[in-house]
Amino acid sequence: MNLKRPVYKMLIAYDGTQYGGWQSQINTVSIQALIQDALSTILRKKTAVTASGRTDAGVHALGQVAHFIHHEELNLSKILFSLNALLPPDIRILALDRAAFSFHARFSAVSKLYHYYLHLDPALDPFQRLYTYRPPHSVDLSLLSEGARYFIGTHDFTSFANTRCSSSKNGNIRTIHRLDIMEQEKGVCLAFEGNGFLYKMVRNIVGSLLDVCRGKLFLKDIPRIFEAKDRRAAGIAAPPQGLFLMQVHYTETT
Amino acid sequence: MNLKRPVYKMLIAYDGTQYGGWQSQINTVSIQALIQDALSTILRKKTAVTASGRTDAGVHALGQVAHFIHHEELNLSKILFSLNALLPPDIRILALDRAAFSFHARFSAVSKLYHYYLHLDPALDPFQRLYTYRPPHSVDLSLLSEGARYFIGTHDFTSFANTRCSSSKNGNIRTIHRLDIMEQEKGVCLAFEGNGFLYKMVRNIVGSLLDVCRGKLFLKDIPRIFEAKDRRAAGIAAPPQGLFLMQVHYTETT
Repeated sequence: MNLKRPVYKMLIAYDGTQYGGWQSQINTVSIQALIQDALSTILRKKTAVTASGRTDAGVHALGQVAHFIHHEELNLSKILFSLNALLPPDIRILALDRAAFSFHARFSAVSKLYHYYLHLDPALDPFQRLYTYRPPHSVDLSLLSEGARYFIGTHDFTSFANTRCSSSKNGNIRTIHRLDIMEQEKGVCLAFEGNGFLYKMVRNIVGSLLDVCRGKLFLKDIPRIFEAKDRRAAGIAAPPQGLFLMQVHYTETT
Repeated sequence: MNLKRPVYKMLIAYDGTQYGGWQSQINTVSIQALIQDALSTILRKKTAVTASGRTDAGVHALGQVAHFIHHEELNLSKILFSLNALLPPDIRILALDRAAFSFHARFSAVSKLYHYYLHLDPALDPFQRLYTYRPPHSVDLSLLSEGARYFIGTHDFTSFANTRCSSSKNGNIRTIHRLDIMEQEKGVCLAFEGNGFLYKMVRNIVGSLLDVCRGKLFLKDIPRIFEAKDRRAAGIAAPPQGLFLMQVHYTETT
């Protein structure tokens, strides 16, 4: 007798502008709640949806991944169609697939890719306002690139992590595999790929890099900020609307 | 004694999503009113702003042009900065310049360029929902191109114009210089360039072309629709959010 219940994996895109983030917060609508409600309606059974990680209010996703468990096999294309019909147009399920029994959207993830978009045009493009951040000062791209190099590799990122209730088994040590500065038509994109990101870590790193650009921090301060292991040592978080969760990577077997 | 007062020309971009259109409507916020209020505050004088034409609720602009008259010379870069500081981020003044005394944003315009974006991906991109229209049926691009050819040139567009109080000296005869179908990453853009556009004309033409794609109209019906000179003969207007006023062209001397 097989007691294992099928696991389903969803690929999700959302415009985070209108929401209080992935996870439910008091007095805000969460993306997770809307997806769970739609799925529970369709499956006629209260169903929990677990994502690769939370995204904050105003943060967007082009490649969020979540899983849920159901007791029977599903007609995937029908469920996918129904989900998108019930969900608001700023949340889209891009794909729905059967996953391995061992698959867990959070614990099976081996790395993630985030993009942070900086708008650097003097006249803010009205169509970019919800999807980029335009700093109120000039941004020296070579300084940004030099600063970015300090964050690549394995570090204790305590100074760049806001505290949240849940703690991780690895403490605050994470590895950033790459942090590329890619020039765009009217700005730059900072691409962060790493094995895990602490709460607000990407936005705190971007905030500190911008502090370097406006002369509030110097490059030589960055190693000392790491050593301090104190959130107060680093700059304030860059605003949420420039941040996109682009991809979550899993091993082949999941 | 020179009685002529300086004329100023503004280049404006806006995300029309939140507004009741360019011109004031009852119970809606208009883009014109916000710009007039900001300008009047800065100039300490009630100042009227006249655009090249109205755009409807939900229609966007990347290159709207408007003019205003002021009794004295202005510090243009200072006024431009102040305008953008007072205006909401979804309305941006891209440029402010002195124009010829004879310049009139509406009457001096010789042609306009509109884009209408169709999203043709099965999964609606959540970031495109406010800036494209995704028809609920398939769109045959060759049929779209064939249909578009019927609209190029000089025609009486009465059947494709919604009625509005103001009537024009040329009746409803307009010339469309080009109507190009340009393929995009996840859809197509219909580029309309013409010497003038009647009320809802672009959206009505797009609506009729989409009716051809879904088999509700045939290509051979189009000449008869033109001949009918009756708005009821053509298809319903395509929704506003796919429409962008891209450029307004003026003669060299203005």
